[in-house]
Amino acid sequence: LIDNFADRLLEAIERKGSPVCVGLDPTWDSLPDQLREHQASPTGKLQAVAAFCQGVLEAVAPIVPAVKIQSAYFEVFRAGGVELYFQMVRLARRLGMVVIGDVKRNDIGPTAAAYAQAHLAGLDAPDAVTVNGYFGADGIDPFCDVAAGEGKGLFVLVRTSNPSAGQIQDFASPDRKTLYQHIAGQVAALGDNPGLIGRSGYSSLGAVVGATYPDEARLLRRLMPRQLFLVPGYGAQSATADDCAAAFNNDRTGAIVNAGRSVIYAYRQDGHKDADWKQAVAAAAEAFARDIRLAVGRT
Amino acid sequence: LIDNFADRLLEAIERKGSPVCVGLDPTWDSLPDQLREHQASPTGKLQAVAAFCQGVLEAVAPIVPAVKIQSAYFEVFRAGGVELYFQMVRLARRLGMVVIGDVKRNDIGPTAAAYAQAHLAGLDAPDAVTVNGYFGADGIDPFCDVAAGEGKGLFVLVRTSNPSAGQIQDFASPDRKTLYQHIAGQVAALGDNPGLIGRSGYSSLGAVVGATYPDEARLLRRLMPRQLFLVPGYGAQSATADDCAAAFNNDRTGAIVNAGRSVIYAYRQDGHKDADWKQAVAAAAEAFARDIRLAVGRT
Repeated sequence: LIDNFADRLLEAIERKGSPVCVGLDPTWDSLPDQLREHQASPTGKLQAVAAFCQGVLEAVAPIVPAVKIQSAYFEVFRAGGVELYFQMVRLARRLGMVVIGDVKRNDIGPTAAAYAQAHLAGLDAPDAVTVNGYFGADGIDPFCDVAAGEGKGLFVLVRTSNPSAGQIQDFASPDRKTLYQHIAGQVAALGDNPGLIGRSGYSSLGAVVGATYPDEARLLRRLMPRQLFLVPGYGAQSATADDCAAAFNNDRTGAIVNAGRSVIYAYRQDGHKDADWKQAVAAAAEAFARDIRLAVGRT
Repeated sequence: LIDNFADRLLEAIERKGSPVCVGLDPTWDSLPDQLREHQASPTGKLQAVAAFCQGVLEAVAPIVPAVKIQSAYFEVFRAGGVELYFQMVRLARRLGMVVIGDVKRNDIGPTAAAYAQAHLAGLDAPDAVTVNGYFGADGIDPFCDVAAGEGKGLFVLVRTSNPSAGQIQDFASPDRKTLYQHIAGQVAALGDNPGLIGRSGYSSLGAVVGATYPDEARLLRRLMPRQLFLVPGYGAQSATADDCAAAFNNDRTGAIVNAGRSVIYAYRQDGHKDADWKQAVAAAAEAFARDIRLAVGRT
């Protein structure tokens, strides 16, 4: 195994040929009908979600280099959901994918260290996690320590993809620098740590940069040259592949685009028969990967 | 049960006489020696943490109106830890305390809704949770919906207590308003919702305002008159009772001060015999409550 997260992710992208990631965001209401039959109890629902997640991971593993597993949808099922979350982390890795745990944790230093242990440390934890930077360096450093020590990674929230992101993140200083640019500067500085930089020159401390704001992404690409961008917002959140391309460097590296609902619930859109749901997911993952490859110019 | 969170917390404070909260932040390394004997395996460690948490809750229940349970220290034990977290939520409530789940969750709207279901909805979830506001209103609204619908509450991070807080939160606009003041304005606006305001006039949408920055707290008290402040930083983080008093309104209401490590690990400080650890915790909770009562002027 390559012992630097940035190098490992870039190698996986080269091997699969597409800089894309599927977001595993399972909600019981959206599962295929066949999985929802006879599953009304909480335990039954969790079993249905487990079957769905396993099917999605198997369907997309030949196509995409990485999967982003959204903790919230597992935490809905409390302890049983958390058990399933870590089972899916292990399954995704066995299937050859790099695993990003989308947990967006954050707290003061000692507590951030506990979160880093809980979600990033050890072989059965994800390869990388998402982290909220509102506490400043204190809340990020413990994740960097685990990342440097164990060849793991993290993506700090810089520009999120949701409609109200600008209410906070566009807050501006006298020289018109915005908060998200200010955080980008801090992310670039913290990531410029020899223990995190791979042979590729990229850092294992990356940034979340939403595809729904391509002008911001182009600016952030210049402010954070050594950061890998995790780019949410394609598909259900309405960003196009061209919007996503703004997050890449001129050499067509430096970012990985995530699609969640538009891929994993593809069977709900196309009038697929229920029995075909895994094929529909695989086909949507193929179409997504091709769409991004073309937009980025990796043909 | 009083069906508005703000009213319920204020009533609990009046009943116990002190506007204080104990932070349950259990780490195995800090447990009493007697609990750490023969507990080297992960399961053994979790059992020791469970015995410790139960002892702390029983020790402080006669003294303090509320407990803040820090999810990170439970998540370290993965699914088993999450199971214990919810057991401790139920135990604290049975012991008559208001329960704040310190989870600091945050995400885009649909995912924030999942977190609100996971951590705030239902009788076995906490009375309130902490929420990070970096996503703007999208990430806060789903928690407000559960709070308004079920008589629960939330505390949005405004000014955190850690040393590097200012790196992000002091970021300033051309009129010298800082980011934390900007977020305070948004919290005040979102909290001014008839479904959240109690008979007391306070909102069930409160704010986290660290005691380590008393000048900021005084300013924020004016910017958020209807917000209850959850005030961390006393004790191990070195804020004094007078620092904490800055978070209260002139009528001596409007805030609840949290102490974690300085109370729950009191037996490590005073040369207590190990067998006395629960008495040491109770004594520290009494001293903490008295210290805050005097500083706030509730004598």
